Parts: sequence; structure tokens; C-alpha cells
Amino acid sequence: MAGKVEKRREELRKKLISIAEQRIKEEGISAIKARDLAKAANCAVGAIYNVFDDLFDIVIAVNGITFQHLGQAVAASLVGNENAPPTERLIVMSHAYLEFAAANPRTWRTLFDARMSTEMEIPAWYLAELERLFGFIAGPVRECFPDTSDEDVSLMTRALFSSVHGIVLLGLENRISGVPDDQIKRMISITLQQLTGNK
Amino acid sequence: MAGKVEKRREELRKKLISIAEQRIKEEGISAIKARDLAKAANCAVGAIYNVFDDLFDIVIAVNGITFQHLGQAVAASLVGNENAPPTERLIVMSHAYLEFAAANPRTWRTLFDARMSTEMEIPAWYLAELERLFGFIAGPVRECFPDTSDEDVSLMTRALFSSVHGIVLLGLENRISGVPDDQIKRMISITLQQLTGNK
Repeated sequence: MAGKVEKRREELRKKLISIAEQRIKEEGISAIKARDLAKAANCAVGAIYNVFDDLFDIVIAVNGITFQHLGQAVAASLVGNENAPPTERLIVMSHAYLEFAAANPRTWRTLFDARMSTEMEIPAWYLAELERLFGFIAGPVRECFPDTSDEDVSLMTRALFSSVHGIVLLGLENRISGVPDDQIKRMISITLQQLTGNK
Repeated sequence: MAGKVEKRREELRKKLISIAEQRIKEEGISAIKARDLAKAANCAVGAIYNVFDDLFDIVIAVNGITFQHLGQAVAASLVGNENAPPTERLIVMSHAYLEFAAANPRTWRTLFDARMSTEMEIPAWYLAELERLFGFIAGPVRECFPDTSDEDVSLMTRALFSSVHGIVLLGLENRISGVPDDQIKRMISITLQQLTGNK
């Protein structure tokens, strides 16, 4: 009996995540409202809170899926480039990041729009997924800076990701930075070549 | 008579911008609603649209003020550092940018949150203000790359701004990048030293 209840809960959980993912894809994070989700899932509003702590939890679950897709896109970009120099691999992955962001603008933005205050407990699997993504970058960065301390390689890895993220963000929005779309890839390449000493 | 009407319009305009600025400071761009602004300004909702094309116009006006304050903060950071090497000047300005963003989180975010589609006409004064800000960076970047074409210096200027912006954004939000606050300045310094070849 407990198993049946558990199974039903798990089904509702999956259904709600799937609905939320679709909503975010189409309209962004602002479209995540308990009443709408309940209506679409054909359940009571209260039932949502039986399977999730709050709406933030659902967004985190959708972000987990987005991270997986992003990881797959980045991994795919490396196929055939395994033996390229580290800077080249970083460029290839960053271009894949740009393409992913351009193709999935709302789910990508939601990765960053979900305001996580430090008080909120971020699930361990989420942090692990993040670490996995940073792992893609940390390898080539380490190769570019063989004599640098682990601490500084970690700092450079995060600085490099943040830099590429900034270029993609402002580039795609085509506003403050005022850069035409076809120049974003070139900006990424030049920046990474400079950052890594083009190793 | 026309002068009197004009004067009243101008007063309402200023009043609405001032109210909007306060709202954005306290609650962010989502707090900009015609009904609330009209109530606070003690005018009819329709009166807002006599002095502004739409709410976007008011946000643009507030952003103009924020750009001025940001420009002043960046200019102030250079005082006493006029003869420092170009990379050092870029670092000093970027740290001022970080401090401005940290001290004015909501008005700063609104500079980027106001979704400007390419269809919207961005006022000439706004673009001029942006150019003025990029001018602060373009000078030292040109010094770092004396043999580079104007086009590539312009690209590097925007890439460099976007990179610092990405580090500040993810650093301050302390989420995806996971970097403690006290390391953001060091990330900026290392990144700029690498980007410019520490000239």
C-alpha cells in the first residue's frame, strides 16, 4: 500500500516537472505558478506541496534537466576534438555553450534567474551536476597553467566560465554590449586565446 | 499658456522618474506599474502616457540616471591612478564596477533587465551614455594592444567589459560560480592581467 502511494507521488512529481519544464521553455520562470501547474496536472494546489517543498524545488528539478542537456551538448562538441590543444577545446565548448543558450533561451536563463539565496538548501545532486560542468573546463585550464596552484586553477576556471557567460549573455541580448550576433563567437575565441595564453 | 502646460508636463515627468527610481531601488524593475506610479504621483494613469510613450520609457530614464552615477563612480576610481599602467587602470575601474553593483544591486540589474528588443527605439542620449562608459575602457585597451586594428580593439573592449560583467554578476549572486565574495576582486584582477598581457 505504501508502495502504491509512493508510486503515485512519484508519478505526480514527474508530471509536474514535465509541465513546469514546458512552461519555462515557452514563457520563462515567471510562468511557474502553483494554481496553473495544479490545473495542468489535474490535481489540487495542495497536492503540489505534498511532493515538493515549494515552487523553487520544481524549478531546481527543471534546472537539473537543463544542466544534463547542457552537459550533453558540451560533451558532444568535444567529439573529434579530444586531441586539440586546450585553448581550442575551451573555445569549442564555449561556442557549444553559446549555441545551447541561443537555442534554449528561457531554460538557460532560468539556470541563473532562479534566485538562490544562501539560506536555501541547494540539493547535493544539483551541486554535483554543477561540479561536473566545471570539470569540463577545469581539465583544459589545468593544461594551460601547468605550474599554477590548484586554488588558482579553480579560480581561473570559474573566472573563465563567468567571462564566457558574460559575453554570451550580453551578446545574445544584443543590448548593452551592442555586438552583432555573428561576432559573439569571435569575441569568445579572442578572449579565451588571451586568457589562456593560447596554449 | 503653452509654456505653462509644458512646464507642468516636465514637472510630472521628473516626479514620475523620481518615484520610479525609488521603486526600482527598493524592489527592482518588477515594481514599476502604471497604477502604482500614478497613485504615488497623485495623477491619473492616463496622465503618465501624456509624458511617456510607455513604462519602458520611464525605466530608460531611470537607467540614464544610473549610468550617470556609474560613470561618476568609475571616473572617481581613476583619480590618483591616472598614470598607472593600463592593466592596473582597468582593474581599478572594474573593482569600482563591482562595488557599484554591490551597493546598488537593483538599479544596476535594471540596466540589464529592461528587455530591449531590437524593435524598440533606444534614445540617442542613452546610446551616447553607453559609448561614454565604453570610452573609459577603450583607452587603456588601446594602450594594451597598440598594434591591433580599431575594429579588434572595439571587440576586445566589449569582450573585456562582458567578461568583467559576467564575473561580477555570477560572483555577486554567489550561485552558479560558487565564488566567495572576497575572491571576486582577485578573479577580476587575474582575468584582466591575462586578457591584457598585464601591460
